[in-house]
Amino acid sequence: MAPAYKLTYFDGRGLGETSRFLMKYGGIDFEDCRIKREDWPQMKPKFPFGQLPTLEHNGKIVNQSQAISRYLAKQVKLAGNDDWENLEIDAIVDTINDLRLKVSAYFYEKDEAKKQTILENVNKEVLPFYLKRFEEIVKKNKGHFALGRLTWADFYWATVSTGLDMVTKVDTIANYPELKAVRDKVNSLPAIKKWIEQRPKTDF
Amino acid sequence: MAPAYKLTYFDGRGLGETSRFLMKYGGIDFEDCRIKREDWPQMKPKFPFGQLPTLEHNGKIVNQSQAISRYLAKQVKLAGNDDWENLEIDAIVDTINDLRLKVSAYFYEKDEAKKQTILENVNKEVLPFYLKRFEEIVKKNKGHFALGRLTWADFYWATVSTGLDMVTKVDTIANYPELKAVRDKVNSLPAIKKWIEQRPKTDF
Repeated sequence: MAPAYKLTYFDGRGLGETSRFLMKYGGIDFEDCRIKREDWPQMKPKFPFGQLPTLEHNGKIVNQSQAISRYLAKQVKLAGNDDWENLEIDAIVDTINDLRLKVSAYFYEKDEAKKQTILENVNKEVLPFYLKRFEEIVKKNKGHFALGRLTWADFYWATVSTGLDMVTKVDTIANYPELKAVRDKVNSLPAIKKWIEQRPKTDF
Repeated sequence: MAPAYKLTYFDGRGLGETSRFLMKYGGIDFEDCRIKREDWPQMKPKFPFGQLPTLEHNGKIVNQSQAISRYLAKQVKLAGNDDWENLEIDAIVDTINDLRLKVSAYFYEKDEAKKQTILENVNKEVLPFYLKRFEEIVKKNKGHFALGRLTWADFYWATVSTGLDMVTKVDTIANYPELKAVRDKVNSLPAIKKWIEQRPKTDF
């Protein structure tokens, strides 16, 4: 039988990896479809808003990585138990995403001088501002980003923070033991550990 | 009795108005707290991540406008009936937000020459790309952004699209009858119509 879910993304971790982690964690069988960069221009118009990742299920297809991860988290019981709990998770996920977007600005900037200005601001202002607050939040939440227990916010952090290190080329959380611990905790879950060992090796 | 909810934002519509619309629609009594720009610098450190809007309820406070609106939509029955339906709503809301962010880049740019370059791109590329696709989606969904019925995605559109007109200083949806109709539909709901008449008159 074909898997019930198909996740389509580039041949990389990027915005697809949180959803892959969630499905691996929950034992959801899925088609891990990876589009090569050179094939993308001709395929782009076929996807909603020309975006990846997409999730296909029961003949339907949707874009937007965070929305997809939120849906999958509910399927694998890593969401909140009521609406307010889900709000708490969503709020911290969106805040982690704010940090991601500010760091991505460096990644996407083509002008080398501007790139350096952004990187300097990221290292001096942006990272300390967010990481200090995240560290306090995780401490308050018994080693998690929300609700004092494992949720998809921790999964989101584990994948996004790895991306931050890749983009800035430094160990961004070296001085934040709580933030390191929560990433390690996710990466050490048996199904995730196995996936990290087995997944395609890619640059980003 | 004090209202169960307190929404804190600047004295403007901006990122607070979708949540205000939702509470007005559902008859949720809330404190509409508006912070003056001149008071913000000293108050900023007291708010999570120095951000507005925030929602307070039962002694808890959260940031992130979209997360707050998603939560409120569930309270007033403008969310999906199952996880996949919520995914469909979330995906289109995030896509409307992508458009909002691209247009906001113009609003926030200080350099006048760069501002004009961004505006040109917004008018020639960004708006047509998104609005054409949104128009088709609304047509397919019987006059709505998702699920063929009124959801908070329509509320999000009504408030965000008004902001797009304000920022670009043109009637962005003049040639998109479906997009105009869905905005008018939300703005004509009795509780929303009344709110629009009674709300504080502000510039943004």
